[in-house]
Amino acid sequence: MQAKFTATEMMDYLEEVFPQIRSDFRVEHLDGETVTMRMLIGDRHLRPGGTVSGPSMFALADVAAYVATMAPIGREALAVTTNISMDFMRKPAAGADLIAQAKLLKLGRALTVTDVLVYSEGEEKPVARATLTYSIPPRR
Amino acid sequence: MQAKFTATEMMDYLEEVFPQIRSDFRVEHLDGETVTMRMLIGDRHLRPGGTVSGPSMFALADVAAYVATMAPIGREALAVTTNISMDFMRKPAAGADLIAQAKLLKLGRALTVTDVLVYSEGEEKPVARATLTYSIPPRR
Amino acid sequence: MQAKFTATEMMDYLEEVFPQIRSDFRVEHLDGETVTMRMLIGDRHLRPGGTVSGPSMFALADVAAYVATMAPIGREALAVTTNISMDFMRKPAAGADLIAQAKLLKLGRALTVTDVLVYSEGEEKPVARATLTYSIPPRR
Amino acid sequence: MQAKFTATEMMDYLEEVFPQIRSDFRVEHLDGETVTMRMLIGDRHLRPGGTVSGPSMFALADVAAYVATMAPIGREALAVTTNISMDFMRKPAAGADLIAQAKLLKLGRALTVTDVLVYSEGEEKPVARATLTYSIPPRR
Repeated sequence: MQAKFTATEMMDYLEEVFPQIRSDFRVEHLDGETVTMRMLIGDRHLRPGGTVSGPSMFALADVAAYVATMAPIGREALAVTTNISMDFMRKPAAGADLIAQAKLLKLGRALTVTDVLVYSEGEEKPVARATLTYSIPPRR
Repeated sequence: MQAKFTATEMMDYLEEVFPQIRSDFRVEHLDGETVTMRMLIGDRHLRPGGTVSGPSMFALADVAAYVATMAPIGREALAVTTNISMDFMRKPAAGADLIAQAKLLKLGRALTVTDVLVYSEGEEKPVARATLTYSIPPRR
Repeated sequence: MQAKFTATEMMDYLEEVFPQIRSDFRVEHLDGETVTMRMLIGDRHLRPGGTVSGPSMFALADVAAYVATMAPIGREALAVTTNISMDFMRKPAAGADLIAQAKLLKLGRALTVTDVLVYSEGEEKPVARATLTYSIPPRR
Repeated sequence: MQAKFTATEMMDYLEEVFPQIRSDFRVEHLDGETVTMRMLIGDRHLRPGGTVSGPSMFALADVAAYVATMAPIGREALAVTTNISMDFMRKPAAGADLIAQAKLLKLGRALTVTDVLVYSEGEEKPVARATLTYSIPPRR
């Protein structure tokens, strides 16, 4: 599939629909199937000890899958998360940004399914993996 | 199982290990098997339109399962989330706190499994459900 | 919700749409929200050592959630499994039937979500839990 | 990681521990990280209409993840499935074998996590995906 957004257009769109997260995320790459997204880690994302919190990793996986879903569909659609499964496999490196690699596995009329691997920047092995289902309500 | 914490002792323990979330959660009930936890919803938990964000619902499910896991084990243990599956079923009511009802289904030596239902306060049908696995590393 | 099938009508319907499983399952109870289903365990469901295999437990959870979905909708609809998360928590008792207790948590126009607990007959603690999403394609 | 089995040795081992599934599966490739496994589809795996049943796809994902887990550990260990999440994304092609591509994402002392994509042979897009956690009990 062809993407209907460039990375810059997607950033503008995210700021419009989710203004409160604008400073946390950067779309580094998108095409119609894959997305690379960076989470700029700050103190508000950390647990004691300096490791990134679970809700922050969830937020990154969720927005990466949202971008993977919207890229080939375009901005006229709505999409809401209906299901996530997520495995936390390693402790994120202290002081490193997180990088999500998302891949759209299914683009149906009503549902999309996206796989996401989350890495601490510079590390070879993923800290977490997730699969998300987005529901695309019919247009009225 | 008997709980090794009262609700008040658990609140003190959460403030000690997760100081940054102290103002968000209240343990309303705990025994050795079930937990009721309130999330005090503020602007930082909301999406445009006033609905509670996915990461906030994740955070509530995660902390409720953590409390259900620690209650019968006691404070000498560590516990880390290894897996979550979560279904988002309805839009949370605007302006209402969220209430999580957690039930510990398995208390093993190495793993626990907890089911969580999340409600908008005063509503009969759940807005989300989750199941979480916590890993309890062996003591050294 | 009111059920559109009795337990006997549902058994007849299952035999019509899934003839190959007719001898494995019994609907013991259904209303518009909950289902109790028995799996009659035979040698073909067992692993060496006499314990019920994972695919057999999956099959039971899947058919129990299917029945919970179809009960309030009626036989004119289609429903296909789109997602399952399942936790295997204890070893099933050798020589005992399995009993599934299913509860329909969401009945939407396009999706249903059902929680299932699986027990060895006569045991208090569940051997497994599952949550299943069924998709209901729009009628043509 | 280095594999402690060749594909042929793994087939022998599977026949020893799971004799009832010997005729269903072929290990086509394994190294210490990835596995390719074929499911030889016969009538017993089919639903009316000729499509492969959900429990059969579950069985394939489960055994592929088991092989991915055991390959780098060796035959002295035990491993039991504790969690699966699985998405059914497309209808399998009638009359085609299924091919699973498994990748071991985490090899811990107590837990492994494996991603599996399932394809109808000859098709480009997966029919299903799954992630499985295996627990490795401590040796006595």
